[in-house]
Amino acid sequence: MNVKEIRQDFPIFKHRPRMVYLDNAATTQKPKSVIQALSHFYEYDNFNVHRSVYTPAQQTTEKYEHVRKQIADFIGSRNPKSIIFTRGTTESINDIAIGYFQRNLSEGEEISVSIMEHHSNLLPWQRLANQTGAKLNYIPLTANGHLDVKQAEQMIGPKTKLVALTGVSNVLGVINPIREICKLAHKNHALLLLDAAQMAPEMPINVQKIHPDFMAFSGHKMLGPTGIGVLYINPKLLDKVTPWQLGGEMIQNVTTHNFTYADVPQRFEAGTPNIAGVIGLGQAIKYLNHLTMPWIQKRCADLGQYLYDQLSQVKRVIVYGPKHRQTGIVSFNVKGVHPHDVATALDLNQIYVRAGQHCAQPLVNDCLKTSATVRASLYFYNTKSDCDRLATCVRKVVNFFHAAQRHLPKYDRG
Amino acid sequence: MNVKEIRQDFPIFKHRPRMVYLDNAATTQKPKSVIQALSHFYEYDNFNVHRSVYTPAQQTTEKYEHVRKQIADFIGSRNPKSIIFTRGTTESINDIAIGYFQRNLSEGEEISVSIMEHHSNLLPWQRLANQTGAKLNYIPLTANGHLDVKQAEQMIGPKTKLVALTGVSNVLGVINPIREICKLAHKNHALLLLDAAQMAPEMPINVQKIHPDFMAFSGHKMLGPTGIGVLYINPKLLDKVTPWQLGGEMIQNVTTHNFTYADVPQRFEAGTPNIAGVIGLGQAIKYLNHLTMPWIQKRCADLGQYLYDQLSQVKRVIVYGPKHRQTGIVSFNVKGVHPHDVATALDLNQIYVRAGQHCAQPLVNDCLKTSATVRASLYFYNTKSDCDRLATCVRKVVNFFHAAQRHLPKYDRG
Repeated sequence: MNVKEIRQDFPIFKHRPRMVYLDNAATTQKPKSVIQALSHFYEYDNFNVHRSVYTPAQQTTEKYEHVRKQIADFIGSRNPKSIIFTRGTTESINDIAIGYFQRNLSEGEEISVSIMEHHSNLLPWQRLANQTGAKLNYIPLTANGHLDVKQAEQMIGPKTKLVALTGVSNVLGVINPIREICKLAHKNHALLLLDAAQMAPEMPINVQKIHPDFMAFSGHKMLGPTGIGVLYINPKLLDKVTPWQLGGEMIQNVTTHNFTYADVPQRFEAGTPNIAGVIGLGQAIKYLNHLTMPWIQKRCADLGQYLYDQLSQVKRVIVYGPKHRQTGIVSFNVKGVHPHDVATALDLNQIYVRAGQHCAQPLVNDCLKTSATVRASLYFYNTKSDCDRLATCVRKVVNFFHAAQRHLPKYDRG
Repeated sequence: MNVKEIRQDFPIFKHRPRMVYLDNAATTQKPKSVIQALSHFYEYDNFNVHRSVYTPAQQTTEKYEHVRKQIADFIGSRNPKSIIFTRGTTESINDIAIGYFQRNLSEGEEISVSIMEHHSNLLPWQRLANQTGAKLNYIPLTANGHLDVKQAEQMIGPKTKLVALTGVSNVLGVINPIREICKLAHKNHALLLLDAAQMAPEMPINVQKIHPDFMAFSGHKMLGPTGIGVLYINPKLLDKVTPWQLGGEMIQNVTTHNFTYADVPQRFEAGTPNIAGVIGLGQAIKYLNHLTMPWIQKRCADLGQYLYDQLSQVKRVIVYGPKHRQTGIVSFNVKGVHPHDVATALDLNQIYVRAGQHCAQPLVNDCLKTSATVRASLYFYNTKSDCDRLATCVRKVVNFFHAAQRHLPKYDRG
């Protein structure tokens, strides 16, 4: 696969030729085919779905439903009804917190999450625990930054009702042993929710091998449009989840004082959905399938390793997480320099990274023992040259601040 | 304003030159400027908002926040913080049902809705009433299809906590006296939620004149993209509504067992928002402002009246609602012919209308006393020629089925 050619599929790299975009865990860039699919939809096929009998509306409905099947295939599900379109990972997880666990969790029962969860897979459980009196357990990390499976084995037991776990840490870039933890959960009659927001873009997922009960991911982090996400519900559980959003096209019958639900998955998609978003996501999946997910996974891990190795050689730089890199996410800090200052210096060189807590405050504060980090997140279209430019610039930052600190010893924003 | 020129702004009319699109209450077509804004966003400005310090991400955040201000201006709100971006009307209303009334409604208290509500402004209140023991009252219609204000005066009283009312009926096309009902609600210390899904596209709205407490509308029904909507919350109430969706960028601090909210409106926008949708909606509002809302209102009402007059002259056609038309929505039936058959006959002539219950089953079944209707919904880009083509085709349908019924007297699918 030729990355130079691949990059030509992405108009933003043509329009911003000097940009080194390393904020892919925040959102990915879009290939021409996705952007054109959106324009084409609005120029030719813009009709509402599941409502009208006229021919072009039926055709748009078929295209919309085709994407559901495409996504089922993408994650190895045999049943397209297991796929629900949401606004994104956040809505998907909240849907399950409110629509299932709010009624299925009691005082004394337990939820296990890892200490590396993104706030979107943490706050809904934190609130639920506070509301119901259930206990929220944190699976810790090993010394080298992996999920501590031995601790998980101790923690997940008969009281556990839910294990809510990310597939890939959006800060450390580690891949969690989801299959193993899922087995552990099921052995204890607990359910497993997989936050695949960072996993789905970077590696193949097969729900028939992992067996998650619920899974959530976002379109915009995997080449798709903003405002569209997926909630996978294991078909066995589809009838046990209550839709919390009520409205049009999710009902069968409505009288003045009662209503009955439509069949799944429609009952979970109240109101006009993000039709263009679904169509665009379909094109994104097509693009990813063309590259193949195993190739993407290897490419991201190789780039991540390369960047890790480059940064580790820079004096005064701390890179977080294991030495052996599994994904394109690399978080680091420059000793004595605030991460926002590092990011600002990089920005001046058109190198775009994120600085902050990455919506993972417990991890950053309690485990990494810092207030914030710089995060470079690579995707398949990044290059070694991108990594080199970042490393070179970080080296300059180190030298500059180090020199400044020698002359102005009291300067310290860290 | 020249409608021929206006139509040239809409690519779909060029690509489907024979189409008569009369399903605007389901979704409107998009002007080139909106479609181009989406492409431009993804080709130049696709960065996440409110997260990163680098320059282009800041610029995208500014553009995103500029639309919030634009929308505040569009509805006459002085405070952009009163504007929350949601997926659409349905989510906006459910946000308020769950985030406010679920904790502020008790047995014996009352919610008043009208019998003409869309399911999205009915089911959330029906469920809430069933959950809390509150009573759900229906404001009936007068004989000619308007909201019965005298009955509303009887019904809204000291027990009323909420009046949830649509601004424009999506079936009858009548405009409700929102300002009057809002005064009535406030006099009784009740709150008013305005479902403006059909109102915002067709007429000027000024929250400083109407004084709604909450208001909801959808982008895709007013030239904007799918998957983006607005929830207006009266600034006085912003701190009293609890965000039900928790996740990234809506918090201030997170520890392992607690969190604090960010300021409004961020706390209501968990996760990555539909950034492109917001940008596209901004362009849609710009286009509407250019035409001016008073012009759009007059244009839609004139077209609606013209279509009503045409259809009323066709034998065996029943047109629902008042003779004096206020909007572009006209529902009708052909005696003895199922509305789906009417819609199918129209479809063969590339005239696209909706047939069904229009997500308003109590109105259609209990008031119109029918199982379904045909609905033609006009927007400013429609023409008298569109109305003529519809009326001509309906006349043919009447003649065809009438002749068929004479020969096959037992045929009746109605």
